Amino acid sequence: MINFAILGAGRIGQVHARAVAGNEKARLCAVADPIAAASDAVASRYGCDVRTIDEIAASDDVDAVVICTPTDTHADLIEQFVGKGKAVFCEKPIDLDANRVRACLDVVDRESGFLMVGFNRRFDPHFMAVKQAISDGKVGTPELAIITSRDPGAPPLDYINRSGGIFRDMTIHDFDMAMFLMGEMPETVQAISSVLTDPAIEPTGDFDTASVIMRMASGKQVTITNSRRASYGYDQRIEVHGSLGMVSAENQRPTSIEVATAAGFTRPPLHDFFMTRYIDAYANEIDSFITCLVKGKPASPSGQDGLNALLVADAALASVRSGTAVKVAKP
Amino acid sequence: MINFAILGAGRIGQVHARAVAGNEKARLCAVADPIAAASDAVASRYGCDVRTIDEIAASDDVDAVVICTPTDTHADLIEQFVGKGKAVFCEKPIDLDANRVRACLDVVDRESGFLMVGFNRRFDPHFMAVKQAISDGKVGTPELAIITSRDPGAPPLDYINRSGGIFRDMTIHDFDMAMFLMGEMPETVQAISSVLTDPAIEPTGDFDTASVIMRMASGKQVTITNSRRASYGYDQRIEVHGSLGMVSAENQRPTSIEVATAAGFTRPPLHDFFMTRYIDAYANEIDSFITCLVKGKPASPSGQDGLNALLVADAALASVRSGTAVKVAKP
Amino acid sequence: MINFAILGAGRIGQVHARAVAGNEKARLCAVADPIAAASDAVASRYGCDVRTIDEIAASDDVDAVVICTPTDTHADLIEQFVGKGKAVFCEKPIDLDANRVRACLDVVDRESGFLMVGFNRRFDPHFMAVKQAISDGKVGTPELAIITSRDPGAPPLDYINRSGGIFRDMTIHDFDMAMFLMGEMPETVQAISSVLTDPAIEPTGDFDTASVIMRMASGKQVTITNSRRASYGYDQRIEVHGSLGMVSAENQRPTSIEVATAAGFTRPPLHDFFMTRYIDAYANEIDSFITCLVKGKPASPSGQDGLNALLVADAALASVRSGTAVKVAKP
Amino acid sequence: MINFAILGAGRIGQVHARAVAGNEKARLCAVADPIAAASDAVASRYGCDVRTIDEIAASDDVDAVVICTPTDTHADLIEQFVGKGKAVFCEKPIDLDANRVRACLDVVDRESGFLMVGFNRRFDPHFMAVKQAISDGKVGTPELAIITSRDPGAPPLDYINRSGGIFRDMTIHDFDMAMFLMGEMPETVQAISSVLTDPAIEPTGDFDTASVIMRMASGKQVTITNSRRASYGYDQRIEVHGSLGMVSAENQRPTSIEVATAAGFTRPPLHDFFMTRYIDAYANEIDSFITCLVKGKPASPSGQDGLNALLVADAALASVRSGTAVKVAKP
Repeated sequence: MINFAILGAGRIGQVHARAVAGNEKARLCAVADPIAAASDAVASRYGCDVRTIDEIAASDDVDAVVICTPTDTHADLIEQFVGKGKAVFCEKPIDLDANRVRACLDVVDRESGFLMVGFNRRFDPHFMAVKQAISDGKVGTPELAIITSRDPGAPPLDYINRSGGIFRDMTIHDFDMAMFLMGEMPETVQAISSVLTDPAIEPTGDFDTASVIMRMASGKQVTITNSRRASYGYDQRIEVHGSLGMVSAENQRPTSIEVATAAGFTRPPLHDFFMTRYIDAYANEIDSFITCLVKGKPASPSGQDGLNALLVADAALASVRSGTAVKVAKP
Repeated sequence: MINFAILGAGRIGQVHARAVAGNEKARLCAVADPIAAASDAVASRYGCDVRTIDEIAASDDVDAVVICTPTDTHADLIEQFVGKGKAVFCEKPIDLDANRVRACLDVVDRESGFLMVGFNRRFDPHFMAVKQAISDGKVGTPELAIITSRDPGAPPLDYINRSGGIFRDMTIHDFDMAMFLMGEMPETVQAISSVLTDPAIEPTGDFDTASVIMRMASGKQVTITNSRRASYGYDQRIEVHGSLGMVSAENQRPTSIEVATAAGFTRPPLHDFFMTRYIDAYANEIDSFITCLVKGKPASPSGQDGLNALLVADAALASVRSGTAVKVAKP
Repeated sequence: MINFAILGAGRIGQVHARAVAGNEKARLCAVADPIAAASDAVASRYGCDVRTIDEIAASDDVDAVVICTPTDTHADLIEQFVGKGKAVFCEKPIDLDANRVRACLDVVDRESGFLMVGFNRRFDPHFMAVKQAISDGKVGTPELAIITSRDPGAPPLDYINRSGGIFRDMTIHDFDMAMFLMGEMPETVQAISSVLTDPAIEPTGDFDTASVIMRMASGKQVTITNSRRASYGYDQRIEVHGSLGMVSAENQRPTSIEVATAAGFTRPPLHDFFMTRYIDAYANEIDSFITCLVKGKPASPSGQDGLNALLVADAALASVRSGTAVKVAKP
Repeated sequence: MINFAILGAGRIGQVHARAVAGNEKARLCAVADPIAAASDAVASRYGCDVRTIDEIAASDDVDAVVICTPTDTHADLIEQFVGKGKAVFCEKPIDLDANRVRACLDVVDRESGFLMVGFNRRFDPHFMAVKQAISDGKVGTPELAIITSRDPGAPPLDYINRSGGIFRDMTIHDFDMAMFLMGEMPETVQAISSVLTDPAIEPTGDFDTASVIMRMASGKQVTITNSRRASYGYDQRIEVHGSLGMVSAENQRPTSIEVATAAGFTRPPLHDFFMTRYIDAYANEIDSFITCLVKGKPASPSGQDGLNALLVADAALASVRSGTAVKVAKP
């Protein structure tokens, strides 16, 4: 039984609290949040304590923490908690600056810390099945991946301003997925980006639509398209082509009905929110964290995976600015 | 907060224990089972007491019971617990004998008891969406329903021997669904049945394959096909045709991947077990039980619904024996 | 090269004229129709002669005829043309009266005539693939078939009045398909029928909606549902369950697009007409007729197949009237 | 009635001969091919003359020609036949060299010639439906297109050597489709390419796998992926995202069956050949050529469309070589 504390009781903190509380091998001990209403809600829903972050760091009854605080606190908190010997699960990204991430990972290394980064999609049952099919050789050597990822709608502007931009905030999931599925890092990245869904995004310097092509060292190719808008719901698809064929994962729907009338055959929209779409992924993710911790296996995705995805995102942004293929920096 | 006890900690008892434990508005207080290992497993998994059935009947801290014991105990337990003022959720069927059910429902009536019968499929999100589409008038007046229901494999022979036969054990779910969706009872039932999957079923007098057509009083029609075998997984489909069109619910799959090779496009089999297929339905069912109870709404599906489905099953069996259209007995 | 004449230049006659004209091994020589405009249209479209039926019967340059005249002339024409040594393709049914069909088939037999009956669906590429999968053992021994057949809309009342009723006019295709796929005749038939789509059908004594269950001698089962209305297009589906699994054929659509918006995912309606839905089937049917003729193979579906389907239709109608399972008459 | 001659009786010439012969408004008069066996086969199949190209150019009874000869003869033949006042349908590409194409189009212009270029996919019913949905405003303003195009297998090496490379031979169809659907030309093109399916392609300097991203002047984006290998058949998919949603066209299959067993649900592979996949497109294409000609409407796709697609292909190849975003040359 692993005793958890949740740091940050916002939207994603609540998701993880639910996953921890529902896991047989875990117990939720404490939650911290500067907003009392938020931490109280989690505490009363799952029957755990409200403590400050420093109290949690000092708590003997806490084995592991889940960091769901604002991004700019992640690296500091990771360093603080690995220093206290706590296992750490940190929401992505570790930091928006690659050098800060490198420094943080050095600390984790020095402390022999246990750090897992929250690329939740690796734990989606459907994408796991894609990965498994590849591992089982069902499609031969993977050669080309096509990833489609579209959010139902754009986040608020102040979120966008703090997000590090679409590549570091949104595409980063797809960069990680690409490396996870293809089993290697991209060598070069080319990207184009536009503001198409909302002119209010223009002044932020960010984009709402992006297309990326990446060339792996072996000549394999990956294509990613992103948009901050999908009227029909949360569009999350993957297809991987290999020497023997293709494996793909379809979109998920809340219900599987279809209504056929003179107007045609209509199925309802997709999930409209990442939490309902990836609810199983979040549960599996915490379960995997616990399993790796208990069995002494390395955390995966690791801090290094977090850094790699960030470096690819940085290259994509540089490509947009330069109009050239940009080499991904050495980790 | 409704305090529950589970009577019977077998397979289906565990399903309901899980649903109760995961429900915000419920608390699992106690579990009873003559096999200590079974009740202990539930008790330790969910942190509740082990008590005898009589202790539970006498417990002040129990508001509601979930009856998951063998069928031949259902009617007696319903009578015992409504007599104690407990809300009762009972797995289907109430009894295999319609007259015993009638007598039991009389007791419930006299005691103004709260009794819900476990036709879990009414709470499947996909079938609920079918019902909603009908209620919303999406397909006009419903006219013809086609229900396909195939189990992955036949149950053990001793289960079959105690089951009351395929119509009362398996098709009964489809009979209830038909009435739920079409909004009326069948007037006549015609059925054919065969033993096709396993000759060992022959000596039991039961069947493993059945086709049923039913005519409602209004002229509406329902077709049901059943088999105890579906190599490709648990096949559960519904389509309802109305004056404006059709609404259908597709099968559910554990994962949505597809592998395409020179051999074609292959998707994995369906769920192989009713518990994984209907896991959401069981959770919704308990939630609905609680909601009706708390809001003072009548239980649905009611004891009467349980009796109705049994009467249709009896008519189907009589039709097989007589080779004629059989009128459904008056409730 | 087989020289053809078309008898009857109405809707279905035009379909066959097109199939003949497009076949490399055939030449369309002549067309006959009492309505000059009809025969002229075919003649000028495909560059063939207009002749009377008797002229065609006497023509040395005609090897084969396609009978597309009204049903009540079919048996006489078959007898006339087999008597002249012409190969005969006759649209279903040979006659609405089983005894007249028997007498006609006796004549064909005596003359060693070559007679094929127009159950076009056997030649649909998708249903052929279903049959092939069964023959290849892909689903093991077939055990249960479910056939769904719904017309986009009801035919005119005067057509209904002459049609012999829904079972002999519409379901007869499904009866033939059931025997074709299952490889045996039904032993007993049970049917229910209603008028649900248009009260104007009531006075004709016919129905617009029917459900049928059939039990084959071996215990295999077949379910058929029919309606004269399908707002979403021509609904033609088959699924066959066997000891190893299921094979099914999906509906066909003019285009495969899907539009996804906030209202959901919408595909266009199905084909709205039997001619576009079964255009390939008609071409394959004529091709098969020619191939059997040239290679000296027996015609299939044969006159006997036509009789068998009619006998099942008669049993279905008798079952509606008696409310009992009706044995199919001996061919 | 338009009288046609086919120049070149190879694979694609036979496709067009079939389309012409099957069109009510067309008559196939003559065919030319240096290989007598090839021209004779077409002539006897469709009942037309064999003539030399020069004879056809001098023929009064020929209104239109379909150029299906080797690519390096296209521009000369276009010039010869527009000079003779014949309407010209020319298989893509007009030439592999953009300047030669420009010169040819100047001649066509000077002669007020009627020239249509064979981008057959614009006439595929499914892709036409995509275009129609966009024109009808079903998805709002189009913003991003994703085109997947994979051949069942690589062509012979000598074909590759003469092909002008994957971008000018294969992707050129997708470039045209992108401009057709989005309604504007790309401003910049970025591409990556690899040899992944067969090392024998390496020495030719060509590639078998390519990914392309394009930015239109308005900021719209297009992604294309190509491979010379698709074990599961001819993979041809399009999706277009707009401000209101997405429209997509699925792959086409010879049959729509599915076999479900313990191994899962399997559908057969896709079409394995462009001729069966696009058989309707070729017929529609010739029909559109005739309609435009008869109605005095400009040919579409025009010679200019052919040049535009070639310029995009040239930019893609330049991008592969430079590793930068390459501006598309002015037409």
